[in-house]
Amino acid sequence: MINVILLGFGNVNSHLFKAFNNSSQATVKQVFNRSKIDLDSSSQSISFTDKISEIKEADVYIIGIPDDAISSFSESLILRNKLVVHTSGGAAMNVLSKNNRRGIFYPLQTFSKQREVSFKNIPICIEAENASDLEILQNLGKTISENVSEISSEERAKLHLAAVFVNNFTNYLYHIGGDILNKENLSFDLLKPLIQETALKIETLSPKEAQTGPAKRNDVKTIEKHLNLLDDSNYRNVYELFTDALKNNFN
Amino acid sequence: MINVILLGFGNVNSHLFKAFNNSSQATVKQVFNRSKIDLDSSSQSISFTDKISEIKEADVYIIGIPDDAISSFSESLILRNKLVVHTSGGAAMNVLSKNNRRGIFYPLQTFSKQREVSFKNIPICIEAENASDLEILQNLGKTISENVSEISSEERAKLHLAAVFVNNFTNYLYHIGGDILNKENLSFDLLKPLIQETALKIETLSPKEAQTGPAKRNDVKTIEKHLNLLDDSNYRNVYELFTDALKNNFN
Repeated sequence: MINVILLGFGNVNSHLFKAFNNSSQATVKQVFNRSKIDLDSSSQSISFTDKISEIKEADVYIIGIPDDAISSFSESLILRNKLVVHTSGGAAMNVLSKNNRRGIFYPLQTFSKQREVSFKNIPICIEAENASDLEILQNLGKTISENVSEISSEERAKLHLAAVFVNNFTNYLYHIGGDILNKENLSFDLLKPLIQETALKIETLSPKEAQTGPAKRNDVKTIEKHLNLLDDSNYRNVYELFTDALKNNFN
Repeated sequence: MINVILLGFGNVNSHLFKAFNNSSQATVKQVFNRSKIDLDSSSQSISFTDKISEIKEADVYIIGIPDDAISSFSESLILRNKLVVHTSGGAAMNVLSKNNRRGIFYPLQTFSKQREVSFKNIPICIEAENASDLEILQNLGKTISENVSEISSEERAKLHLAAVFVNNFTNYLYHIGGDILNKENLSFDLLKPLIQETALKIETLSPKEAQTGPAKRNDVKTIEKHLNLLDDSNYRNVYELFTDALKNNFN
C-alpha cells in the first residue's frame, strides 16, 4: 500500500483523490489545502488540514497548485528528505525545494470539476532524481493507470506545449464553429458527431492520413466562398493561416 | 420502400451505399460511376453502370461527386422531372440542372474509405423545392439517421464553414501536436486520451465552459516559455493568434 498526501485540492488533485480512493493499492492519508474543501459524503473520513505544521508522514506528497506558487510553497514545507512531487506539465522538477527528494507525477489530461474521468488510459508522466523514487512513482502511477512513462522535464515541456495545441486550441476551434452556427440560429449539436468522429479518426489514422477539406485539395473556389462568409476578422485570420499551412503541407 | 440510385461512388456515396443497404426501408437500385467500382462480396448483386443512358427509374437520385462537377453532370443526365439531389456541404441547391426536381441530402460528417461510421447520429441536412420532395428526403433520411433537419442553402454554407473549423483545422492541430512530439521522439499516442476527452467534454459543456489553459488565465510566463520552445514559425503564428484570441475572449 502506498500512502499519499495531497497538497492542494484543485482540479488535478481532486481527480487524483478520487482515483486513489478507488484503487486498492494506494491510499490518500491526508489532504492539505489553504481553505476548507468539499468532500463527498463517502470521503468524510479523510483527514484534512489547512496547517502546514500538521502535515503527516507519507510515502509520497503530491503538490497540485498553480505553477507560480509551487516553488515557494515547497520551500515552506517543514518536511525533510521526503518524496515531494508536483503535477504540473509546465513547471520543471527543479522548481521544487531541495529540502526534499524531488519528482514529477503529471497526468496528461484535461480536468474539469464537472466531469468524471477514468485514469486507466491517462498517461502518467513521471520523473525523479533517483532510481528508487522513480520506482515508487512508477508503482504509484500503476495503481491508477496502465500508461506510466518516464519523461524528462525537457520532454514534459514539449508535451505540455503539444497539449495546448490539441486541447486548448482545438477547444477554441469548437468555440468558433459554435459561434458561426449561433449567428444563424443553428444548434451547436449539429457539429457534435463531426467533432467526435474527427477525434476518433486519429485513433487509427495519422493526422496526415485523416486530413480532408478544401485547403488540402486546394479548392480555391470553396476557400474564396468561405472567406467571403467570414465577417469576423479574427476568424478570417485563423482560416487564412490554417488554409495556407495545409496548402503548403499537401500541395 | 424508397428506391435510390447513387450517381458517383466517392467517400460520401460509398458510405451512403452501406447505410442504405443496412436499412430495411431504403434500397440502392443502381450505382452509376464513370469508372468500375469495388463492391464487397455481399453487394455484388447491385446493378452497376458506367453509362448515363442506362440509368434506371428511382424515387431519389443522389449525386456524390466533386462540387465543381455537379452542375455539368446534372445537366448531362437524360432524366426529366425526377428528384435529383446532391450531398455537398459547399454547393448550393441551384447548381443542379432545372431538368429535374432539385434537392439536397447532406450528411454532416467526415468520411474516409478506411473507417466505418454509424449514420444513426449523423445530422442529415435536407432541402427541396417543394413540400412533397422535402417529405421524401425526410423519410429517406430517417431510414438511416435519427437526426434529419431541413437546412437552407445559406445555412448549409455556414454549417460547412463551421465544419472546416472543427474538423479540418482541428485535425491540423492534431498534426502540429504530433509533430512537436515526433521531434522529441515521443509517441503521438501520449496525446490521444487528451484529444478524446477534449472532444467528449463539449458533449456536456459549452466550448466556453470547457476552455482551459495558459491563454485563458493569461499565464504570461507559460506563454513566453512555449513561444521560446517553438522553432517552427508557422506553429508560432498559430500559437500567437490563438493565444491573443483566447486572451481577448476571457480577460
